[in-house]
Order: sequence, then C-alpha cells, then structure tokens
Amino acid sequence: MSTPEERLATLGIDLPSPPRPAAAYVPVQRAGDLLFTAGQVASGADGLVAVGRVGAEVDLDTAVVCARQCAVNVIAQLKAALGDLARVRQVVKLTVFVASDPGFQSQHIVANGASELVGQIFGDAGLHARSAVGAASLPLGSPVEVEAIVQVDPA
Amino acid sequence: MSTPEERLATLGIDLPSPPRPAAAYVPVQRAGDLLFTAGQVASGADGLVAVGRVGAEVDLDTAVVCARQCAVNVIAQLKAALGDLARVRQVVKLTVFVASDPGFQSQHIVANGASELVGQIFGDAGLHARSAVGAASLPLGSPVEVEAIVQVDPA
Amino acid sequence: MSTPEERLATLGIDLPSPPRPAAAYVPVQRAGDLLFTAGQVASGADGLVAVGRVGAEVDLDTAVVCARQCAVNVIAQLKAALGDLARVRQVVKLTVFVASDPGFQSQHIVANGASELVGQIFGDAGLHARSAVGAASLPLGSPVEVEAIVQVDPA
Repeated sequence: MSTPEERLATLGIDLPSPPRPAAAYVPVQRAGDLLFTAGQVASGADGLVAVGRVGAEVDLDTAVVCARQCAVNVIAQLKAALGDLARVRQVVKLTVFVASDPGFQSQHIVANGASELVGQIFGDAGLHARSAVGAASLPLGSPVEVEAIVQVDPA
Repeated sequence: MSTPEERLATLGIDLPSPPRPAAAYVPVQRAGDLLFTAGQVASGADGLVAVGRVGAEVDLDTAVVCARQCAVNVIAQLKAALGDLARVRQVVKLTVFVASDPGFQSQHIVANGASELVGQIFGDAGLHARSAVGAASLPLGSPVEVEAIVQVDPA
Repeated sequence: MSTPEERLATLGIDLPSPPRPAAAYVPVQRAGDLLFTAGQVASGADGLVAVGRVGAEVDLDTAVVCARQCAVNVIAQLKAALGDLARVRQVVKLTVFVASDPGFQSQHIVANGASELVGQIFGDAGLHARSAVGAASLPLGSPVEVEAIVQVDPA
C-alpha cells in the first residue's frame, strides 16, 4: 500500500512550501483530534492559477483546476502541520467557495476538482462530506477557496 | 414522549431517499461523536422547489419553504446514517446559505425555515447555533443550501 | 498575566449584552469541549456600524471596524456562555463573511479586524485558523458576519 506522499509523487505533485498567512492567524489549528485549516486560495508557484469569477472571467475547466490547486495547498498545510500525511485518519469536511457570476450554477462541478484530488491522495481516509457554495468574490480575486476539517491520529 | 420519526409523521413529512452525492464525496462523515453533513439543496420529489436567487427570481415566502426542504434533506441524511433519529443528541450548528440578490438582506428570515423544522422534530436536541449567509448563487440554482454539524450518541 | 476581561478593559471595550437571536436558534451551542457560535453581525450600541456591501456602499476602513465589532459580539457571546473568558483554551476557527461588491478582493484585510482583536484579547489562545469569504449580502445589510469555533476547559 502506498502512502499519501507516494501518491502525490505519482501524480507529479510537488507540495509547495505552504502559503503563510498574515500574522493575525495560523494556517492550521487543532482541537483534540480535529484539525481545522484556514481557507486556501488557488495560488501556485507563479501566483494565482487564475483571477476572477467563474461564469464571468473564468471558465468551468479553469475553475476545476483552481479547486484542485486549493486542495494541493490544503494538503501542503496538513503536511507542514503533521509531518507525515499518514497521520490523517479521515478528511471529514471540505467547504469549497467558488467566486461566481450570479448566473453560474455548477459550484459542485468545480468542487469536484478538490474532492477528487483528496480521494486520490488519501483513499478511504479522503472520503469527506462537502459543501459547494457560490461567493460574490474571494481574497486576491481567487476563483476558488477551500477549507478542511480533518481527524488525525495522536502524535 | 414522541420520537423524531413520529413528529415527522405528524407533520406529514415523508423523508425522501436521501439525495446521493456524486462519487467524489459522501453525504455524511463522522469524527468521534460529531457528524458533518454535506450541504443539502432544496430538492424534493419533483426536483428543486424553486430555482434562482432570493430577492430576484425567488420571493421570501418561497425561500422559507426551500430552507425547510433543505432541512428535510439534512434529516433524511441523518436518518440514513444513523438508522434511528433518537441517536441525535444535539444538533450543534446549521449553516444556511441563501442565494441572494445583492439587495436582499433577510437571510435570517429564510434560515428560520430550516431552524424551526429542526426544532419541531428534535425538541431541545434541535437547539443549534446558526449562521445565515448570502451566496452569489448555489449548485443547480437552488435558492438555499443547508449543512449541519450534529452530536450523536454512541451506536 | 492579565485576563481576557482585563485586556478588554484596557482596550476600552465594554462587552454588550449579547445580541439575542430569534427563538429558532441559540447564540452558542456546545459539543464536548467545542463551542460553536452563531454568526454575529456588526451591531453595536446604536445598531449596525454600517450597512451595505464592501467595495460599494462601505469602504475598506469601515469594513475593518465592522469585522472588529463582529468579533466583540462573538466574545460577548462566549462571555455569556462561559462566565469567565479564561475558560477559552483555544479559539480554533473564525469564518469571516464579507458582503462584497463583485470587484472587491480584500476580504482577508477586512477579516484582520476580527483576527487581530481576538489575538489581543486571548493571546496564544486566540491563534486561530480562518477563512475570509465574499458574500452577496448579509442579514440586515451587515457588511460583515463572523462565526467562531472555540475549545474550552471543562467547567
């Protein structure tokens, strides 16, 4: 059985040095065996994958890629917090906010970009509940923002 | 003392076969004694109760009905996950997203459609914290989406 | 070492009698050692600090003040629920919804108004994960709404 890190490598995903939030908050906070991540935007090595609202400046296919990139950043934050991604017992919940033109109604399709990556990397431990919601806009103009609640094994 | 199932029957509510999400996620995930539900849209036996944004294509009264229908779907998911709704010790939190015209400012009135049903069905165990938030739009054009965090008794 | 209540006094903040929600829900609900607050709007002694969407009717500086006021109301709810704010072991998560013009992309700057106050009042126990999200609109026209998840010490 492969590890989450090996599956990331198989998919050719290098986890970024996780984006650091401003000093006013932290990227991950823990309560008991639950980890709560800060909302992650669609930033990659060269900045945001795209900027704008889905259904207006950003098309559906690009938005799916953005959601996947947000999930990469969530996983990078979990890796930084845990050291070993095998300590993820269960990804419990993802909330996927999609900056949306008022006429755009496929937030769930966009969110699959995040959900499917999490499933590929964590297997059954990646099976999560999920909400997909249309936002008026998101920080820095990111088309997507993803936050996670994760149950972990004790250190 | 009546059971939640008996109260549903008294209100004439047949729980639907719970809407199944796409394979990328699950309708309910558990961590310890907490259940997290996926966001539920306002789908009934004949599809969505209404389509569009509240304050634009959808009026307030219809939106309240939509919020109630979302709550029915949340309860259906809990029933499917737990078997017996008496295992709900406490509905802890509801988040109610309301697809909103920018000028619409009564998301809290809409959300009462979900909160009041949860109170009727679960009694004190239904007393929850709640956020009501205006979304730009929601999956499939649903006017409302509701997610829940629920504390359960051990099996 | 000063207490959270002493730090509030130093900042000249009188906690309001916490705004009471309608009967359909409660301001704070507990599950184990986690408290979930209802979403708090930017209401002060004289009503909402401002009304409208940030980037349209409300400017950035005013929005930061609104976020801080929402955080005051969150803290007031925690005080009412706990009696003693020193029972807050960790503010785990803040979600900051910002009613946003579609062109507004600085929800994270607005959210700092809440995050920084929480840090000032709770110190290390105030270091939280956070999401900042643009809403189409919010209840009563509040420019900001903040909800919290908090880990507490046993009574």
